[in-house]
Amino acid sequence: MFNFTYDLPTKILFGKDQIENLGQEIKKYTDSVLLVYGGGSIKKNGSYDAAVRQLNEYGIRFEELAGVAPNPRIESVIEGVDIIRENDLKGILAVGGGSSIDCAKVIAGSVDYQGDPWDLVSGKAKYKSVLPIFTVLTLSATGSEMDRNAVISNTKLNAKLGTFHPDFLPKVSVLDPTYTFTVPNNQTAAGTADIMSHIMESYFSVDESAFISDRFAESLLKACIKYAPIALTKPDDYEARANLMWASTLGINGITSMGKKVPWSVHRIEHMLSAYYDITHGTGLAILTPHWMEYVLNETTLPRFVTFGINVWNIDASLPKEQIAKTAIAKTRAFFSSIGIPEKLGELGIDDTYLDEMAVRSHGPNGLPNAFMPITVEDIRNIIKNSL
Amino acid sequence: MFNFTYDLPTKILFGKDQIENLGQEIKKYTDSVLLVYGGGSIKKNGSYDAAVRQLNEYGIRFEELAGVAPNPRIESVIEGVDIIRENDLKGILAVGGGSSIDCAKVIAGSVDYQGDPWDLVSGKAKYKSVLPIFTVLTLSATGSEMDRNAVISNTKLNAKLGTFHPDFLPKVSVLDPTYTFTVPNNQTAAGTADIMSHIMESYFSVDESAFISDRFAESLLKACIKYAPIALTKPDDYEARANLMWASTLGINGITSMGKKVPWSVHRIEHMLSAYYDITHGTGLAILTPHWMEYVLNETTLPRFVTFGINVWNIDASLPKEQIAKTAIAKTRAFFSSIGIPEKLGELGIDDTYLDEMAVRSHGPNGLPNAFMPITVEDIRNIIKNSL
Repeated sequence: MFNFTYDLPTKILFGKDQIENLGQEIKKYTDSVLLVYGGGSIKKNGSYDAAVRQLNEYGIRFEELAGVAPNPRIESVIEGVDIIRENDLKGILAVGGGSSIDCAKVIAGSVDYQGDPWDLVSGKAKYKSVLPIFTVLTLSATGSEMDRNAVISNTKLNAKLGTFHPDFLPKVSVLDPTYTFTVPNNQTAAGTADIMSHIMESYFSVDESAFISDRFAESLLKACIKYAPIALTKPDDYEARANLMWASTLGINGITSMGKKVPWSVHRIEHMLSAYYDITHGTGLAILTPHWMEYVLNETTLPRFVTFGINVWNIDASLPKEQIAKTAIAKTRAFFSSIGIPEKLGELGIDDTYLDEMAVRSHGPNGLPNAFMPITVEDIRNIIKNSL
Repeated sequence: MFNFTYDLPTKILFGKDQIENLGQEIKKYTDSVLLVYGGGSIKKNGSYDAAVRQLNEYGIRFEELAGVAPNPRIESVIEGVDIIRENDLKGILAVGGGSSIDCAKVIAGSVDYQGDPWDLVSGKAKYKSVLPIFTVLTLSATGSEMDRNAVISNTKLNAKLGTFHPDFLPKVSVLDPTYTFTVPNNQTAAGTADIMSHIMESYFSVDESAFISDRFAESLLKACIKYAPIALTKPDDYEARANLMWASTLGINGITSMGKKVPWSVHRIEHMLSAYYDITHGTGLAILTPHWMEYVLNETTLPRFVTFGINVWNIDASLPKEQIAKTAIAKTRAFFSSIGIPEKLGELGIDDTYLDEMAVRSHGPNGLPNAFMPITVEDIRNIIKNSL
């Protein structure tokens, strides 16, 4: 078990109508915010109206940045920064899913930088200060509501990069499962895949000494496996939506990776696919994951797949280990398929045009020497190829 | 799943030698502390010397309050408050187990109150302000290193009361498992029982909709069941001590009770035993718990015992439900016995002298109407009697 720091001061207000406490929470930090959101869904599910009511009730001045895209673009960041500067706003409230929240984070960190915000995302420049961030979550997926990360795309450069700052951790996040009742099935499925991928990226490690983190990871995977099918059949099932929402937050806030040190493999590959093809992140992850599993299964990684099979998929522990591992991978693929996710990248219009380019860029100069199984450019190429 | 707030800003520095980061963390809040501890164990395990080195290195002025007893007394609180006032100290550092930490918390809240601190503990007066609290944990048990509670005894009144303040949550807690290598076996066992009791108090509920909290609870119980025997046999097993330590923190910090509303039953009864007989808290809990389980097992509570038996004790799910439940209780008792805890209160010198008195006071004016199974004075009397 590796040393770790647990430091998660985000205040989570979880449950129906918790948005009624949002105004008083924001007011502790600021009197003005940029309200960031994506398309029209938040106007249908009631979260936009409730947020605006709270801002008005507590006298919090606000301007709006609408139209943030899935795989949020650097152009939205620039637009948001401009609005904040013009109106001298002191905080940011994102209402939506991970795209709106990630965009809000990078805006919050870019106001204090005079150059191109892409410098900050690409690591060329450093964040100096970050405005306080608040979120109202309407999609269970990225976990951005309680983490320090954001992912921003630059379509001109075919780039999709993760960026990080300690103060990207929101001050307060409202998690009301009823706001996800109207999420369409394909997004519920992709969101679930994203949650499960976050958990599995940390879970698959050779070292098994962080017992609690691993059992927590299995708990969250089981929650997804139990509740995603229920939410797909009965979109307004509160218990299902609530457990998926809490799983999205806990899946990436660190509680399943305390004492572990595992660089993420599948996300790295998927970010390249999204950058070149602008596909839905969770869908890409779900397609790649079983292929990645098959590819990295070997003598060293076998024990972890066996544990995964027994504890997550309830596979009979008395079967031969190899069989448990292969069955576990098959069940993972079958689960994603059962919630409506395609099994091949070809179904999303991806072919081998950029295969070599994506493999080289995904690997980067150093690869991932400490990954569950370190993979070369050739390995990445094969994993994508197997997934086409 | 009930609405909840997750708000846990304590920073945890977990792992070997993390105390080397303590000085810089304290310095963010204050330049002076009262150093609170119990007996001589912290001078043997190295934590006292390391803490003092950190205070000196960072120029943090300090005075000491030593000799805090297990089941910490109100007299220690008064003594600590006096030292703080005389020396104008601005923070508190507890080095030790739950007793030292709990005592530090109530001292921190009593400095700003001119009357008898017992007024604050008993609820007659309200805490006005709380000095910042820091802890170095040397015993895995109470979880006080990351919660808002403290328990203080008043031997003159045969009283042991829980008391609460949001700012009792420590600012920073250092959790170095190596400091628990020298904990004697009886304390490792009692500490484990305390951890497991915290988890079970929330776990046993009729409502099963907080799926994630319940699976997390089972994860922590399994960690205790796996690692306590290892720590007893090999006291310097880092992985075992680390998992027990992390379980103690997560067992009570709320992560297993999010979305649940269950008043604690067994702790309430045990506090009376400790108040009259000054026994080790965890030992009392371990003896009472299986008797409480047997007493509350009925048609309504059966499903939860079945889940407990299957998920925690790996009992064959195809057996009759009643049998699973009874086997689960028997396994719980056998586990506590296997780690060296007596099965009867009589072995601790407790008889029926104060039985009625303890039952009446434990029940209080209102009892616990929303408990897993609400229990009357007569019920409490029977549970204690069965445990004698």
